[in-house]
Amino acid sequence: MDFEQLQKQIDFIHEIDKVKYIQRKTRLFNSDRAENDAEHSWHLALMALILSGHRNEDIDLLKVIKMLLIHDLVEIDAGDIFLYETTTSHTNTVAELAAAKRIFGILPENQAQELIQIWEEFEAGESAESKFARAMDRFEPLLQNRSNKGGTWKEFNVPYHKVIEKKSIIKAGSNVLWNTPKSYLTIV
Amino acid sequence: MDFEQLQKQIDFIHEIDKVKYIQRKTRLFNSDRAENDAEHSWHLALMALILSGHRNEDIDLLKVIKMLLIHDLVEIDAGDIFLYETTTSHTNTVAELAAAKRIFGILPENQAQELIQIWEEFEAGESAESKFARAMDRFEPLLQNRSNKGGTWKEFNVPYHKVIEKKSIIKAGSNVLWNTPKSYLTIV
Repeated sequence: MDFEQLQKQIDFIHEIDKVKYIQRKTRLFNSDRAENDAEHSWHLALMALILSGHRNEDIDLLKVIKMLLIHDLVEIDAGDIFLYETTTSHTNTVAELAAAKRIFGILPENQAQELIQIWEEFEAGESAESKFARAMDRFEPLLQNRSNKGGTWKEFNVPYHKVIEKKSIIKAGSNVLWNTPKSYLTIV
Repeated sequence: MDFEQLQKQIDFIHEIDKVKYIQRKTRLFNSDRAENDAEHSWHLALMALILSGHRNEDIDLLKVIKMLLIHDLVEIDAGDIFLYETTTSHTNTVAELAAAKRIFGILPENQAQELIQIWEEFEAGESAESKFARAMDRFEPLLQNRSNKGGTWKEFNVPYHKVIEKKSIIKAGSNVLWNTPKSYLTIV
């Protein structure tokens, strides 16, 4: 056994612990406690598992779950950017790419390359898997905000058409979720 | 579309938010902040992904990850039991089985049955997937405790032979991890 490879993997496992400290703007369900990136990623992975029957296209579910487990790791270096922030770009920024290279780069070469590729595929949002994964990433805070009487939409005065514009990514992954009557999304 | 099925899935997604409030005894790496069950489950799923090359037997990785994402949901009702607690049984208690039936039972029937089965397989620890998943569940706190100068072992005066006894489950899932020289496991 090449323990040097294992050492790199353990270093990575240690490094990613930091996402547990990254606070999102969105709050937990019926709560004012902010969610952190690790909790968020766990919830999305499990949502993908539960909701995969509502996908628009055939998907490799394991790949979707990989995407969701790792999609926010770049925030260890690049920080969380609020979805409705208007002054900063959200995808594929220079800072995020550098973060991906540093953080995944802790792993053995072949694993680093695989995960950077999967992260880039998620960011591009063109494959069936990334469309469904990104739908989950939009659907969870929608449910959370609805449970919190508007949540961050209200807190930051986000206009309705902006919410619809950002949430339309759900449609690309799942028409069923997009067309769900609002009454089903109200969590009390 | 049968929105009644979707409603059950959304109710489940809401219910499982509660694991974000369940505190474990173990602390984050190099920290005195307790880890919660959602963070723990996320970390284990990602560890399985990274470390799957060290498995003893062929495994269905998606199934392993499913197990790890859901393995602590029963604690919403049954609570977290410290691994070295001597007065309470840890597996397949009446309380845990009732919790599994209630919580997974929120889902549509076929999904509820699948997840109860996967949870029971994890608890039994007999299949290749459950052995590897359980190895992850023992390996993460081992790394955490080593990063915290003994962590919960020291805090609760757990004798060395007890640690070895509990950790031997790692061997059933991965001889490589079990045989890793200690120096590689020391996180500073």
